[in-house]
Amino acid sequence: MAKTNPGRFFEDYTVGETIYHAVPRTVSGGERALYHALYPARHALYSSDEFARSCGLPASPLDDIAAFHVVFGKTVPDISLNALANLGYAEGRWLKPVYPGDTIHSTSEVIGVKQNSNGKSGVVWVRTRGRNQRDEVVLDYIRWAMVRKRDMNAAAPETVIPTLKPALGASDLVVPEGLDFTNYDFTLAGEPHRWGDYAIGEKIDHVDGVTVEEAEHMMATRLWQNTAKVHFDVGSRPDEQRLIYGGHVISMARTLSFNGLANAQVVAGLNGGTHANPCYAGDTIKAWSEVLDKAETTAPGVGALRLRLVATKGGEPFTLKGEDGKYLPHVMLDLDYWALIPR
Amino acid sequence: MAKTNPGRFFEDYTVGETIYHAVPRTVSGGERALYHALYPARHALYSSDEFARSCGLPASPLDDIAAFHVVFGKTVPDISLNALANLGYAEGRWLKPVYPGDTIHSTSEVIGVKQNSNGKSGVVWVRTRGRNQRDEVVLDYIRWAMVRKRDMNAAAPETVIPTLKPALGASDLVVPEGLDFTNYDFTLAGEPHRWGDYAIGEKIDHVDGVTVEEAEHMMATRLWQNTAKVHFDVGSRPDEQRLIYGGHVISMARTLSFNGLANAQVVAGLNGGTHANPCYAGDTIKAWSEVLDKAETTAPGVGALRLRLVATKGGEPFTLKGEDGKYLPHVMLDLDYWALIPR
Amino acid sequence: MAKTNPGRFFEDYTVGETIYHAVPRTVSGGERALYHALYPARHALYSSDEFARSCGLPASPLDDIAAFHVVFGKTVPDISLNALANLGYAEGRWLKPVYPGDTIHSTSEVIGVKQNSNGKSGVVWVRTRGRNQRDEVVLDYIRWAMVRKRDMNAAAPETVIPTLKPALGASDLVVPEGLDFTNYDFTLAGEPHRWGDYAIGEKIDHVDGVTVEEAEHMMATRLWQNTAKVHFDVGSRPDEQRLIYGGHVISMARTLSFNGLANAQVVAGLNGGTHANPCYAGDTIKAWSEVLDKAETTAPGVGALRLRLVATKGGEPFTLKGEDGKYLPHVMLDLDYWALIPR
Repeated sequence: MAKTNPGRFFEDYTVGETIYHAVPRTVSGGERALYHALYPARHALYSSDEFARSCGLPASPLDDIAAFHVVFGKTVPDISLNALANLGYAEGRWLKPVYPGDTIHSTSEVIGVKQNSNGKSGVVWVRTRGRNQRDEVVLDYIRWAMVRKRDMNAAAPETVIPTLKPALGASDLVVPEGLDFTNYDFTLAGEPHRWGDYAIGEKIDHVDGVTVEEAEHMMATRLWQNTAKVHFDVGSRPDEQRLIYGGHVISMARTLSFNGLANAQVVAGLNGGTHANPCYAGDTIKAWSEVLDKAETTAPGVGALRLRLVATKGGEPFTLKGEDGKYLPHVMLDLDYWALIPR
Repeated sequence: MAKTNPGRFFEDYTVGETIYHAVPRTVSGGERALYHALYPARHALYSSDEFARSCGLPASPLDDIAAFHVVFGKTVPDISLNALANLGYAEGRWLKPVYPGDTIHSTSEVIGVKQNSNGKSGVVWVRTRGRNQRDEVVLDYIRWAMVRKRDMNAAAPETVIPTLKPALGASDLVVPEGLDFTNYDFTLAGEPHRWGDYAIGEKIDHVDGVTVEEAEHMMATRLWQNTAKVHFDVGSRPDEQRLIYGGHVISMARTLSFNGLANAQVVAGLNGGTHANPCYAGDTIKAWSEVLDKAETTAPGVGALRLRLVATKGGEPFTLKGEDGKYLPHVMLDLDYWALIPR
Repeated sequence: MAKTNPGRFFEDYTVGETIYHAVPRTVSGGERALYHALYPARHALYSSDEFARSCGLPASPLDDIAAFHVVFGKTVPDISLNALANLGYAEGRWLKPVYPGDTIHSTSEVIGVKQNSNGKSGVVWVRTRGRNQRDEVVLDYIRWAMVRKRDMNAAAPETVIPTLKPALGASDLVVPEGLDFTNYDFTLAGEPHRWGDYAIGEKIDHVDGVTVEEAEHMMATRLWQNTAKVHFDVGSRPDEQRLIYGGHVISMARTLSFNGLANAQVVAGLNGGTHANPCYAGDTIKAWSEVLDKAETTAPGVGALRLRLVATKGGEPFTLKGEDGKYLPHVMLDLDYWALIPR
């Protein structure tokens, strides 16, 4: 038993330490094909090498959310194996596209800890960085989770709560090197709407829905080498239901958002996100978006939209929280991100 | 809501116009591997680069039916999102193999329209062409579908019914450049039967069956970026059943036909096809074939068989229609195609 | 009917003959990605090209068990289509890694036959070899199966029972050319335990479990072009359950064994294996291992562990057989193999 990984507990995290996550991963056209099989992914920049070249990139990158999953998956054995809840994300920035052939590894720096008043658990904040084989950072984000203590009598660490930006500013975003939307082909991309056609406050119902299956979410979650047992083993929870990886819901909602946001090609920033309610096999995921902000960038023809992306199971579109300020039961995800779109 | 694609309705089609379909797609070894995971695909030319080279091709192409799916999938948002029925195919010709690394896009020319007598819908005929990154046509076929009208009061267009060949002649078929079956290895291919061993009228029961699952047909359908919601969302139909994409049944039947037609390697022509009855998860697909015609080609060692391919769920092999001339309820697919086989 | 493959029956095997199996297969990054989607595969040498290079290999190979499946799958139509039981394996040796781009084909030499006393079936022993496009043997193993007779009156062949090694010695193992663990990165690999940290007799509970689904095992089994109908067609067995391919259980158990054996990177030898009880969709697979032997190799930094790998559904870890010497009902697999691990 001593040889297996029990995961870290709250008292195992020290502010300032860097955790080197295991199992680097080389991606290929196989990961891209699987992403298209598991999600209704249609953003042209991630579907066609030719389209990507016409936008100044050397080839079609791996979907940005897939890159997130690869980086995130490596952190699970060290960060969230004993997590009671995944509480939030902040300051996520995609710094370099990931291409087939790239090898990704991850590290996390502990940037905050706060023991809960019950003495049984605490909140851990980490800044995770994914790097490619040239040690270039491809993705950088903060997340925090509530983690169990191993020893209830362990002393509480000094509380350190990091200062987090409520949202990235447009100047924080990194546009992929070479990206140029001046000759963007709206017909091939699938919709005519450009940056100027979206107004702050505008809401879009993405209409389509997908009823999810056990085999699909397990394949997706394994592909990213996420090992949290609640996703795979019916015996790991009293209700004998497999809890679907929150990232599966993110990918499903983001790809469903093609219908109305086909030109919001590049995910450049993650301002925040809440997994409001669990998702189980048999649920039908739908999505709606709200334009929260707009900004220009210095890259040719490239604008930015700050978007709220909400994933639901049932319920009316555009409903989010009840009068008590809590998420409604049919809301599974409330994500806040920046996307790059032709101006 | 105005930003999402409601699809085209019957009155939106004008004979002579060309529709440029969105979302070009680059295929890789990932699509090939998934095709082998989703279907019992064993035709050697599409499984082994070495075998393909021994037959004069530069490498193993993507399965011809998979190439069809890629081209077809792009047309769905423009052609069949509001379709009531997919009525038929004609004059389908595979003109160039699709290889890993190729990027495919599709266009459709409207070649016929006929409003139904009920005034609520009409039939639209389109000629769809899939092209690669060199703008070479890889596949060319006609299909027609019954499409809803948006406005029941819209005037009926002038009826144009295209003249369709009931079947391609052998001289219409395009043999892939370089294909040479003179040194064909029947042992590696899996069966000894060559062109001369098949007789017109001969029927073959392919014996094997596959019970289909929701996760599989959805993964397949998404892989081809087919977005028709009836395949994915249990809420999209009153019976709360997901209707399986007809192309999934085609691929399953064609790959099952390996057992008895292992050497009918290349799909070169599509004469016609009927999706006679729906397929649902839990159905067990079996297949039988009938040799409809035989022809020689000018390529070295290459003959052609015209085959009927029938997919069933239950029922006796070789049964097709009842005394009333209608398809029996267990018949799901009646496909008429040309395959290339060593002479 | 005469064109389909009925499979071979017991009386069709002659000691000394070589069977050339059909359908060579080129593998790519697609197969690697699917292996990671279907199993919780995390051994770093098979996940990262960079890690593989740091260990002296040119790139990350296809997982050794996946290579086994590719070789094995080709033999099914000739060896086990009419098998009543897959009885055992012996003397399996991985001789060359399989890389993306390689094309694999298989042959089997009949090395033993023994008719059963009931006269209705017999045991066939074959030595199967998988070869790449350079005709290099990549894998070599013996298996035996109980096969039905076609004609109960066929005369019994002369009994030939091959002499099999109960286990390979360490000197029988072939270390992949260039493999060098002297600069092995234990942090990236995920665990600190090296060869010297494992003791003969030590048992490891791998803790994690996976509840298996129909879609997953069928996709896996098809990917290896294994055509045995019991895996796919609910109508092929009286209980209308699809029997899961034993190799699916092997891959699941081996990948689950990462947790405790993360550094047992390379599968180099297969000493034996028993599929003790069937696996069905809905079963939750867990695994435990026992260190059976240890050996050094002449390769730099490379040691070998002989491991028992047991896959279970329910039951207590480390339980294997009852007082009657028979496998307990929750034991599905008892595999005996050699793995290479840093010293």
